Amino acid sequence: MLIVKKFGGSSVANAEKIFNVAKRLGKSYDEGNEIVVVLSAQGDTTDELIAKAKEINSKPSRREMDMLLSTGEQQSVALMSMALEKLGYPAISLNAYQVGMYTTSTYSNARLKNINTDRVQSELERKNIVLITGFQGMNRFDDITTLGRGGSDTTAVALAAALKADRCEIYTDVDGIYTADPRVVKNARKLSEVTYDEMLELASLGARVLHNRSVELAKKYHVELVVRSSLNYEEGTVVKEVCHMEKMLVSGVATDKDVSRISVIGVSDEPGRAFSLFGLLAKHKINVDIILQSVGRSGTKDITFTVARDHLEEALELLEANKERLTIKEIVHDENVAKVSVVGAGMVSNPGVAAKMFEALYDAHINIQMISTSEIKISVLIEEDKAETAMNAIHDKFQLGNVNLRR
Amino acid sequence: MLIVKKFGGSSVANAEKIFNVAKRLGKSYDEGNEIVVVLSAQGDTTDELIAKAKEINSKPSRREMDMLLSTGEQQSVALMSMALEKLGYPAISLNAYQVGMYTTSTYSNARLKNINTDRVQSELERKNIVLITGFQGMNRFDDITTLGRGGSDTTAVALAAALKADRCEIYTDVDGIYTADPRVVKNARKLSEVTYDEMLELASLGARVLHNRSVELAKKYHVELVVRSSLNYEEGTVVKEVCHMEKMLVSGVATDKDVSRISVIGVSDEPGRAFSLFGLLAKHKINVDIILQSVGRSGTKDITFTVARDHLEEALELLEANKERLTIKEIVHDENVAKVSVVGAGMVSNPGVAAKMFEALYDAHINIQMISTSEIKISVLIEEDKAETAMNAIHDKFQLGNVNLRR
Repeated sequence: MLIVKKFGGSSVANAEKIFNVAKRLGKSYDEGNEIVVVLSAQGDTTDELIAKAKEINSKPSRREMDMLLSTGEQQSVALMSMALEKLGYPAISLNAYQVGMYTTSTYSNARLKNINTDRVQSELERKNIVLITGFQGMNRFDDITTLGRGGSDTTAVALAAALKADRCEIYTDVDGIYTADPRVVKNARKLSEVTYDEMLELASLGARVLHNRSVELAKKYHVELVVRSSLNYEEGTVVKEVCHMEKMLVSGVATDKDVSRISVIGVSDEPGRAFSLFGLLAKHKINVDIILQSVGRSGTKDITFTVARDHLEEALELLEANKERLTIKEIVHDENVAKVSVVGAGMVSNPGVAAKMFEALYDAHINIQMISTSEIKISVLIEEDKAETAMNAIHDKFQLGNVNLRR
Repeated sequence: MLIVKKFGGSSVANAEKIFNVAKRLGKSYDEGNEIVVVLSAQGDTTDELIAKAKEINSKPSRREMDMLLSTGEQQSVALMSMALEKLGYPAISLNAYQVGMYTTSTYSNARLKNINTDRVQSELERKNIVLITGFQGMNRFDDITTLGRGGSDTTAVALAAALKADRCEIYTDVDGIYTADPRVVKNARKLSEVTYDEMLELASLGARVLHNRSVELAKKYHVELVVRSSLNYEEGTVVKEVCHMEKMLVSGVATDKDVSRISVIGVSDEPGRAFSLFGLLAKHKINVDIILQSVGRSGTKDITFTVARDHLEEALELLEANKERLTIKEIVHDENVAKVSVVGAGMVSNPGVAAKMFEALYDAHINIQMISTSEIKISVLIEEDKAETAMNAIHDKFQLGNVNLRR
C-alpha cells in the first residue's frame, strides 16, 4: 500500500517524540508499505519564529513571513530523516521546492495548484521513506508560500491525491472523530466512519481535528482519509464518500463558542434593506452565519444574525456608522451565546431529527434563540453557559454513546 | 556602486543587532548604492541545530545535516528583510535555490560551480536591497548543500564576482587586518591594504578573519575585498592584487598554535624513503607542513615534520603500524610548539628579512627548531610558550607598530 501519513507539530516536538514517530514509520515500512510522510514544524517552533518576527516588525510582509516560517517544517523533516537513519531505515527529506509543490501566489494563505510527483516517485522507487515539509509551497516566482491554517493536512491530502495513494492518515492527539467532544460529553463514542460531508460540518462546528480545506480536497479527489492517534495503534476514524454501514441518523454533536449575536431593530420594512445590510458586511469580509428576520412594531422589522467573535467589534462599528442609511433604530448584541449542532448524513430523509433535538433541549430547560438547518445539520443558538448541558442532553437523546444503536 | 556586503552570525544575533545592520544597509542604500547582502545564521543557531541533530543521530547523513542547517541562514535573511521594511527600505530575501547558487554534490563541503544572477539582477532593478543566504547552495539533484568553513565569505565573494560588483565588504568583529593579533601584540597596527597573497598567508597562519577559499576566489576573479568592522564606520583593510602604496617589506606577524612536530629517527639512507613516508600520510589525508631532513648516525637519516594537532594521533598510529616497512628506528613527537611567521609581498626581493627575523628571536633568547620559507613568508617553529614573546620581538624589530615607517 502507498500511504501518506501526516504528523502535527506536537508529535515531533522533541527527540523522544521524533523517535516514537520514526518507529511507527519503520513498522509500517517493514509491513511492505510505501510511505510518504508530511510533517509540521516542531512543537512551538512556528510560534517562536512569529515572536521573533514581531519583535522586529509588528506587520512583516507576508512573503518574508513565509520565508521565515517555512524553515520550521524543513527542520522537522531533516531531523526525522536522521532518526529513521539511526533506526536503520532509508529515508530522504524534501522541501516544497524539491517536491515541486506549486501554489497560487498569495503569501500566508496560498492554495495548492499542482504537484510534480516525479521526485517523490523516484525516491519511493529507491525504497526511501519520503519526508515532506507540510504547510508550504512555491509560487510561480519561485518564492516560498505557506498554506495557512490546517496547511499540513492539506499538503498530505494533496500529495495522496497526486500520488494516487491508497490512503491518507492524519495523526493527531485524539483517537479519531467522536460523537461529541469527549471532554464535555462523558459517554462520547468514537466513530469508525464518517462521510466527507459530515466531517465538513463537524469541522466547521469547532471539532478542530481536520481543517475543512483538507476534507474538501479529500472529497474532491476521493482520497480515503483516516484520523488516528499518534500515541497508540487504535484504528481511528475513516472519512470517505459513503459509509459502509447503515447511514446514521446523527453522527455527532458539536459546539461552536466562537460566535456572537447582533440584532438590528426597527429597520423600515422596505425591499432591499437586508441586502444593503449584508452587502455592507460582506464588503468588509465579515461572514454572517445564522440569520433571523422578524416583523417588528409599526411597519418595521428586526434582523438578527451571528458573526465570529473577532468580527463583532468591526461589525458593530460598521452598523453604527451606517445606522441612518440602513434605517436602524437600535443595535444590540450578545457575546454570551453558543451554537450547538447535530450532524448526520442520515437526517436528510428524516424530518424527526429537529423535533427530537428541540425536545432534548426543552427537557433540559434550555431556551433556543435561533435555528438554522442544512441537509445534514441542525444548529441552534443558545446561552453560552448552557452549551455543555445541551450537548449532553442531545447526545443522550440520540443515544450516541451506545455503540449498538444507530438510530 | 554595486556592493556585496557580508555579515556574520554575531552581527545578526538578535533583534537589536539586526536593526544595527539594517540601519547601516539603509545608509549605504541612501547614498545611491545597489546592495546585495549575504548573511550567516543568527548567533548560536547553527550550533543549536547541530546539537539537536546529534541528540537524534550522532552521525547524521551529511545531506540531511545540510537540509537542517540551511534553515538558519534562511531565517536570518527573512528577519533582516523585515527589519529593512520596518525602516522603510525595499528589501527581499532569497535562498540558494531562488538565487540559483549551484554547487558540486558534496554535502557539508560543496564548492560553488555557478551562479545564475537573473533573479538578483531583476531584484536590484526593482530597487530592492537583496538579502541572500550565505553558506549554502543547490546541487544538480536540487538538494541543498553547504559550503563548509568560511562558507558565507565564499558566497559573498562568488556573488561579487558573478555580479561584477564594485567591491565585496566582509563585516566582522575586528576593524580590519592587523600587523599582528592585537590581543598579543599591544602596538599592532591596522593595515589599510594587503595583497591577496599576503592575506592568504596570513589566513592560513591562523589570522582567522577571512577564510582562504574566499580570498582565493577573490584573487581569481579580481574581486576587491574589504574587511571592516560591523560595529563602527572605520575604513577597514582593502585586500587586492597590488597595493597602491610602496610594497611593504613585512605586512604582518602571525602565530599558529595548531601544530605539532613529529620526528622519525634512524631511517635508512636510501632513495624513496621520504616518498614512502609522506605518500602514506597523504593517502590518509594528513597534511604535512614544514619538513626537515638531516643526516643521522651511521648511514641513516632523521626526518622531522609538522602536522595539525588533530591529525597527530592518527599520524603516530600510521607510522607505528608501518615502522618496519619505513625502516624507522624511533618516533618522537612534541605538541608544545608554535609556528610564528612574517608575511610580506615585499620580501621576495629582499634577502635580509630572514636574518632580521632570526636576530629578533636571538635577542629574545628564543631557540628556532625549524625554518620554512615561501616567496612572501618566513615561518619558524619554536616552543609554544615563547610564541607571544616571539611575536612582539619580531613586530618591534620590523617596527610594524609605526605607521610612518614601512621598512
